[in-house]
Amino acid sequence: MLGARGGWQALRRCASLPRAQRAVRLRVREALRAQEPAGGVKVQGWVRSVRSQKEVLFLHINDGSSLENLQVVADPSLENRDLTFGSAVEVQGKLVKSPHRMQDMELKAETIHVVGSCDTWSFPLKMKERHPLEYIRQFPHLRCRSNTLSSLLRIRSEATAAIHSFFQDNGYVHIHTPIITSNDCEGAGELFQIETSHEARESAEKTHFFNVPAFLTVSGQLHLEVMAGAFTHVFTFGPTFRAENSQSRRHLAEFYMVEAELSFTESLQDIMQVMEDLFKTATNTVLSKCPHDVGLFHKYIAPAQKDRLEQMLKNKFVTISYNEAVEILKQASQTFTFKPEWGCDLRTEHEKYLVKHCGEVPVFVINYPYNLKPFYMRDNEDEPQHTVAAVDLLVPGIGELCGGSLREERLPFLESRLQRLGLADAYQWYLDLRKFGSVPHGGFGMGFERYLQCILGADNIKDVIPFPRFSHSCLL
Amino acid sequence: MLGARGGWQALRRCASLPRAQRAVRLRVREALRAQEPAGGVKVQGWVRSVRSQKEVLFLHINDGSSLENLQVVADPSLENRDLTFGSAVEVQGKLVKSPHRMQDMELKAETIHVVGSCDTWSFPLKMKERHPLEYIRQFPHLRCRSNTLSSLLRIRSEATAAIHSFFQDNGYVHIHTPIITSNDCEGAGELFQIETSHEARESAEKTHFFNVPAFLTVSGQLHLEVMAGAFTHVFTFGPTFRAENSQSRRHLAEFYMVEAELSFTESLQDIMQVMEDLFKTATNTVLSKCPHDVGLFHKYIAPAQKDRLEQMLKNKFVTISYNEAVEILKQASQTFTFKPEWGCDLRTEHEKYLVKHCGEVPVFVINYPYNLKPFYMRDNEDEPQHTVAAVDLLVPGIGELCGGSLREERLPFLESRLQRLGLADAYQWYLDLRKFGSVPHGGFGMGFERYLQCILGADNIKDVIPFPRFSHSCLL
Repeated sequence: MLGARGGWQALRRCASLPRAQRAVRLRVREALRAQEPAGGVKVQGWVRSVRSQKEVLFLHINDGSSLENLQVVADPSLENRDLTFGSAVEVQGKLVKSPHRMQDMELKAETIHVVGSCDTWSFPLKMKERHPLEYIRQFPHLRCRSNTLSSLLRIRSEATAAIHSFFQDNGYVHIHTPIITSNDCEGAGELFQIETSHEARESAEKTHFFNVPAFLTVSGQLHLEVMAGAFTHVFTFGPTFRAENSQSRRHLAEFYMVEAELSFTESLQDIMQVMEDLFKTATNTVLSKCPHDVGLFHKYIAPAQKDRLEQMLKNKFVTISYNEAVEILKQASQTFTFKPEWGCDLRTEHEKYLVKHCGEVPVFVINYPYNLKPFYMRDNEDEPQHTVAAVDLLVPGIGELCGGSLREERLPFLESRLQRLGLADAYQWYLDLRKFGSVPHGGFGMGFERYLQCILGADNIKDVIPFPRFSHSCLL
Repeated sequence: MLGARGGWQALRRCASLPRAQRAVRLRVREALRAQEPAGGVKVQGWVRSVRSQKEVLFLHINDGSSLENLQVVADPSLENRDLTFGSAVEVQGKLVKSPHRMQDMELKAETIHVVGSCDTWSFPLKMKERHPLEYIRQFPHLRCRSNTLSSLLRIRSEATAAIHSFFQDNGYVHIHTPIITSNDCEGAGELFQIETSHEARESAEKTHFFNVPAFLTVSGQLHLEVMAGAFTHVFTFGPTFRAENSQSRRHLAEFYMVEAELSFTESLQDIMQVMEDLFKTATNTVLSKCPHDVGLFHKYIAPAQKDRLEQMLKNKFVTISYNEAVEILKQASQTFTFKPEWGCDLRTEHEKYLVKHCGEVPVFVINYPYNLKPFYMRDNEDEPQHTVAAVDLLVPGIGELCGGSLREERLPFLESRLQRLGLADAYQWYLDLRKFGSVPHGGFGMGFERYLQCILGADNIKDVIPFPRFSHSCLL
């Protein structure tokens, strides 16, 4: 989390500083990792515990740079009534080897300055309590000060960086696809529509800011396809929206999606390979950058997830066709709420069964029925069954994590399909792309919150976002 | 743009491959940078020029991995009628040293396969023409295939990565602040309001998906302040929205903003230092990663920008107070449309004059009148003048690039100000933050498109985004 710049150089300077000079500011993470004792150190943060003994005062302070706190050891004379759990402090002193086995370094305080006091009586977090996720979810503006949520936020930050790095290292160009769009093609759920607040007030007469009804994006795919006509590798990673009226643990109105599009593909396998590489590379990066933070989830929140995740990383992902999937489900001894039938979409219960059947590893299901999928997916021309080159990636404990397809790059196929759907006019620009050097291409999307749930085992999707939304209540 | 993974290793393998084996796919950028000749190479891309001579056929192909094209040399017998400007091709052959001084390597074709033909008659881009930005702006779905826009998109991608890296290297935690929010505090312009498309259709009776009116975010600042109570360094980089009814060259309805928040600040100087470091570090990274792409803008679009940018990077940014700024403006020989007056906001004409007055370098203007600024800015307690600890960064050719402030961390100050404004109830959660270990903190925002304009000298902001919006017309 902390880069090459600040810490070590600062520390090297301060080790030889005369006392009178200004103290060197270190973050908790830097102080904990210091190689040798140093004087003239200043650490700032929030108090996570206070323990006052006759001879000595112990503090634990945290500044968000790591899950671990820095232990401060002080003379009891430095105690004061504002020095409580939750207060903000600045401590100056000497960094020394700790006699305790829990940490390498501790700070011997010379001065403790309470920068901001804390009204502990009304503060919803309590010292040394492990508050359940459901409890802290009620305090969207304060829960980041709990261990669990600050770990989550560091993990989310590192996972974001790892995903960006994966694509950059592989030569992808990052595209900011539009958030406001007139394209509502996917039929992937209810949309959010946008108007100026002025229009909202005087909504009798409808005029539109953009001259056309404008929506919040449900996917950047079609825009990425535009870019895939000039770049062989593009990706986007941003917010997407579904106005699904749901209090579910699995859905959010606003969520992040990673999407990639590749040109000159040879088969669906090209797309699946990127999905698998992305999952494994990003996850290994997160595990190596935040071992303690991930460890907290695996220890206290989802004890089974550690082994599960190791299995996912170790094994090659399995591939089955939709046809095979339906056969597996039909032969299952389990009774499903929705009867498995060729031509019907797979439900969560089906997905979970398939993953279990394949040995609790990630499973690619490929080649879905033509009539089940949107217009842009590539026709496999395998009548009478008639499928398209689509793929879903199902993972243990989550179900669908990614979805992708080859896109229909052939003008006649696309044109006749859009005409049958009455969409040829609306998608003239999309058809246009097939007239000017059209190439086989395809791509996929991965829900970022689902991905985090998959690493951490967090059961409720509202616990892997910075600010919990109760779909139908408070918004900060 | 291309990472450590693919290229070199692939090339080393292919140099020793027997002819019959599968060709190794190289991107144009990799092929151009190859150190030595190699057989069994496959390059895919779009044709940028075709020149047929009696003895030899020349192609230039581009795949978006670089501004430079790869020259393909072929026997005229490989020509075919679909091999035109704009078509997509796959060329197999040998990579050899080029006899021409314009490139190191060229591809001697053994086979040329036209993957996708191009209807050159209706294709709006023409071979070897340098189309003006205004012309290609009319084709939002095709302009990425012009040199200028593909350069812009590579630069935008690298600039995004450089900004992320700057913050990561300095220990900032990346926070995805909400896009949909009920917070409309800033008064920074007209907002976009959100409803489900179902609500939009039946708008007589207003019910809200989120129970409260919901808007598109104008800034992630208040949410970052929440996080600054648990992390000493946080940032966000995402879309923000203003429903400003403007066809201006300077404004967008949807734009990207970089925002950072720092805790335990000592003065406004802490914030200004980060602004200056961010600008210089990110810009140097972009210049070193995309020299040719930036060069194209500096050569053809904004010839004066190169020197200007070098000046900005070389010199320490200047700081003046708002008081000084007003004095300078009052003493100016120039007549302004808006008369400069203490207590009034600085207009673009004023900003430009100040930058010129200070020697065409970036200028921080600090300490603005209390009554001019939003409630969250920190009171300088310097009555009778009465200013707040706010800062704007003005840059040559653009005007305001960044804005920031120290935030009012003192509960009594904030409480009385919110009460006077009648906002105390709405911002109870924000006041709450000041009760539990509140610390001096501050932050800033930088418009990402303005930043790109500042590097490139692009006059119209619609030319630095992936998809141009004509505020009141087409949306893809």
